[in-house]
Amino acid sequence: MTYCVAMRLASGMIFVSDSRTNAGVDHISTFKKLHIFHKSEDRTLMMQSAGNLATTQSVMSLMQHRAQDATTQNLYTVSSLYDAAVLVGQTLKEVIERDGSDFTATFTLGGQIRGEGMRLFHIYAEGNFIESTVDTPYFQIGESKYGKPIIDRIVSYDTELEQAVQCALISMDSTLNSNLSVGLPLDVMIYHKDSFDDAHQHVITAQHGYFNEIRTMWGSCLRSVFDRLPPLQLK
Amino acid sequence: MTYCVAMRLASGMIFVSDSRTNAGVDHISTFKKLHIFHKSEDRTLMMQSAGNLATTQSVMSLMQHRAQDATTQNLYTVSSLYDAAVLVGQTLKEVIERDGSDFTATFTLGGQIRGEGMRLFHIYAEGNFIESTVDTPYFQIGESKYGKPIIDRIVSYDTELEQAVQCALISMDSTLNSNLSVGLPLDVMIYHKDSFDDAHQHVITAQHGYFNEIRTMWGSCLRSVFDRLPPLQLK
Repeated sequence: MTYCVAMRLASGMIFVSDSRTNAGVDHISTFKKLHIFHKSEDRTLMMQSAGNLATTQSVMSLMQHRAQDATTQNLYTVSSLYDAAVLVGQTLKEVIERDGSDFTATFTLGGQIRGEGMRLFHIYAEGNFIESTVDTPYFQIGESKYGKPIIDRIVSYDTELEQAVQCALISMDSTLNSNLSVGLPLDVMIYHKDSFDDAHQHVITAQHGYFNEIRTMWGSCLRSVFDRLPPLQLK
Repeated sequence: MTYCVAMRLASGMIFVSDSRTNAGVDHISTFKKLHIFHKSEDRTLMMQSAGNLATTQSVMSLMQHRAQDATTQNLYTVSSLYDAAVLVGQTLKEVIERDGSDFTATFTLGGQIRGEGMRLFHIYAEGNFIESTVDTPYFQIGESKYGKPIIDRIVSYDTELEQAVQCALISMDSTLNSNLSVGLPLDVMIYHKDSFDDAHQHVITAQHGYFNEIRTMWGSCLRSVFDRLPPLQLK
């Protein structure tokens, strides 16, 4: 399983992914699910993957390989993120047609290409996709349910990037606690609007001081909020 | 969809269920999913149902009808909750065999029969079941994921009944916010150990003052805990 969350907010975008991949509970490995395409100052693209590892790796390999040939439509040559989403969708369909429809996957694709604003897409196994809006500023892929309530309570389009990352980490914490097939380390990428850089990448391991601090603090604060609820009155 | 949670704790048991049933988003109705069997002071049994409504209603009808015939093994004559779970499992298998394997359902069954302690079972569509223990004092059926993290953080076997009900209500709140197919009113039943009564039943509608108070308070307290997290530090 997997848990990835991506947000497109007023001041930038964030991408947070776990890195556990499993085929049964006795075959667990670590694979990065966050991929960044950045070569020059005209674009920064982030992709996250969930689903069958053979499929997601094939899609990433093909996207990376084809991005070397500057004469074709590829992630470094397309002129809009919409066109990039079409490309990823087509590549995903191509791999699923080759390998079989049991081996599905989904992606998020977001970032900014010079000439347009930041955009974020959720790409389905069928190759089609939806785009994030001001009303729905985030997408999740993989094991999304455990970590959804806290995002819905905290994040809106105008949330500051720092708060959004904190919220994504708390959301990840709830998911890590509930689903063994979601695991550390986490990959975090923060993109500031119009920066066209890839400078803010972080890896969060089990020894990460800040992550452990807010995990512990969140758990104990929830407990104390709970203890302060007014006495039960059902009548 | 459905969300039901049942807990077996040191001092008693609680059962909280939503009441929304839907066949598509344009066919929504209200059906009670909490059923209580209590006739005399020798037993109190609670059942919650999730899954196909035709199946769950048939199972409940058969259980209730057969409970009229004192010469047979039924919920009023079995001498242990284990035997009651076997009966429910058999009835569920019988209905699924009759109506087709697309129409599955799951149940929780809990309570107390004189001569033994409180017990709680989770009964699967295959007719088999698992029993709650001190380590795992609760079961959920239906849309369980949104509301699971808060229960895992708050509830253990020694949690007081009042706190457990509060926690189940908060868990229900997170689920109501995230899944349209889970809806009010809620049915709540609190059973005190060795009481053999069914006195503590409550219905929580959208106008319920206490439920609305803790929903609002929980939301705003989470927000303020969040605002007090230490500043983001990823390096």
